[in-house]
Amino acid sequence: MPEFIINKLCIIGVGSMGGSLARALRKNNSVESIVGYGRNPERLIKAKDLGVVDEITSILGDAIQDADIIVLATPLGAMQEILIALKDIVSSTSVITDVGSSKKFVIDAAKNAFGKVPVNFVPAHPIAGTEKSGVEAAKADLFEQRRVILTPQANTNASAVKTIRSMWQACGANVVEMQVEHHDEVLAATSHLPHMLAYSLVDTLARMDDQQEIFEYAAGGFRDFTRIASSDPQMWHDICVANREQLVNMLHAFNDDLQRLTKAVEQADSEYLKDTFTRAKNARDKFCE
Amino acid sequence: MPEFIINKLCIIGVGSMGGSLARALRKNNSVESIVGYGRNPERLIKAKDLGVVDEITSILGDAIQDADIIVLATPLGAMQEILIALKDIVSSTSVITDVGSSKKFVIDAAKNAFGKVPVNFVPAHPIAGTEKSGVEAAKADLFEQRRVILTPQANTNASAVKTIRSMWQACGANVVEMQVEHHDEVLAATSHLPHMLAYSLVDTLARMDDQQEIFEYAAGGFRDFTRIASSDPQMWHDICVANREQLVNMLHAFNDDLQRLTKAVEQADSEYLKDTFTRAKNARDKFCE
Repeated sequence: MPEFIINKLCIIGVGSMGGSLARALRKNNSVESIVGYGRNPERLIKAKDLGVVDEITSILGDAIQDADIIVLATPLGAMQEILIALKDIVSSTSVITDVGSSKKFVIDAAKNAFGKVPVNFVPAHPIAGTEKSGVEAAKADLFEQRRVILTPQANTNASAVKTIRSMWQACGANVVEMQVEHHDEVLAATSHLPHMLAYSLVDTLARMDDQQEIFEYAAGGFRDFTRIASSDPQMWHDICVANREQLVNMLHAFNDDLQRLTKAVEQADSEYLKDTFTRAKNARDKFCE
Repeated sequence: MPEFIINKLCIIGVGSMGGSLARALRKNNSVESIVGYGRNPERLIKAKDLGVVDEITSILGDAIQDADIIVLATPLGAMQEILIALKDIVSSTSVITDVGSSKKFVIDAAKNAFGKVPVNFVPAHPIAGTEKSGVEAAKADLFEQRRVILTPQANTNASAVKTIRSMWQACGANVVEMQVEHHDEVLAATSHLPHMLAYSLVDTLARMDDQQEIFEYAAGGFRDFTRIASSDPQMWHDICVANREQLVNMLHAFNDDLQRLTKAVEQADSEYLKDTFTRAKNARDKFCE
């Protein structure tokens, strides 16, 4: 296999995700030069100070000039504007990709910006993350042994797909391809819905009269359960809005099941409770450990 | 402070909780002899083989003979039967305590068994645990820096309370006292409700057509979020039934909030979503890290 080296990588939005990608590629000697672009100069300076990127700029044209790969790592809500800005200045020799958690939304944004999805745009989503945000939370090993899902379109250049596949493999990730809608459904189930439950639970408790005491008596299980409620609110707002069709389906399915469980608790329906808990325990033990 | 030594400790139900208590007291040289009682001989033999207890017996009278402290560490559903069996044979010089997650239920069980709550019975609940069950999961440090809540009654012997307080302090725990109803409300909020959500979520996903694939794409956040769904179904059935009044209240409060959040996602109500997520993040960051 020929060596995979990115001469110039441009990261748009250098937070925990974009920063981790930079660190991972650097660690594995897969990149010569990394330029960071963003709208917040303080955060960009921090990214450079930490050695996550080599250069920083707030001029998009400079950032993408001669870039082999341009990675959109902003919250979803900022992507369409970036894509519109890219339209007239991006070279067809640069491969564009993203890390967004809703693929239909990003693909629609690309269509809106370019008229159709550019052949050199490879929608992608690494299934990894942390509840901590900002470039300070960037970790070189974030993607090791994790999945990255690509959702290329019918017209996507095969060589562009190969480039993005190689980039993520260089970070230690396992790369798979998936249909857009299926990606969005799977992510709604395994990531977006759990985040809604964690946020909603903590908020329910935080609005109770004795919230101070409530949280004092929370044990280790509660900390693990609610860890994802410490995630960035803007980012999760954007994901909710972007993937709301699939997420609402999952919320309704969960709501129905929780109503049934609530009724079973009310009625002390032992069979229902034990069956549900046993099914859940078996599923989790099988898949998660 | 005079040294605290338990000459004979009797543990009824030597699982992860009773076993951790035994290991903690042993580690801190606070017990001379530990006898384990239970209905499953294989599990008792395992407890002895692992050195968690010194002696085992399936005869309750032998187990409690001359015990300074008798700890009920069975699932809640087994407690009333044990208390009835203790009634005619327990010495007034033994202090009885428990580790149950619903205090009203245990106190009612004691009333039902003894006619009134015995003066030498100190209801207690260590706020610590693991999703792993069985004596193999017992850990000497499980209670270090954790809270233990005592809910003594008006007629409880002060010296009995002091003994149980000392026992948990010897395990490194911080001991507090609380009203029964308040304990049950706090635990419904911080432990019982989260367990229902985790079980219900995993069960919802496990019943989806593509469950195999769904779980394959679950990331770290999902694993943390659903860890408590690997807890013992029988134990959690018992807790649901025992604390169902408080748990149903919390489930209804959560259901209402989740319905509102679902509606906000449907309507892409940015203000509601950002407010909720921000409130939750702030509360968790403040209390949990």
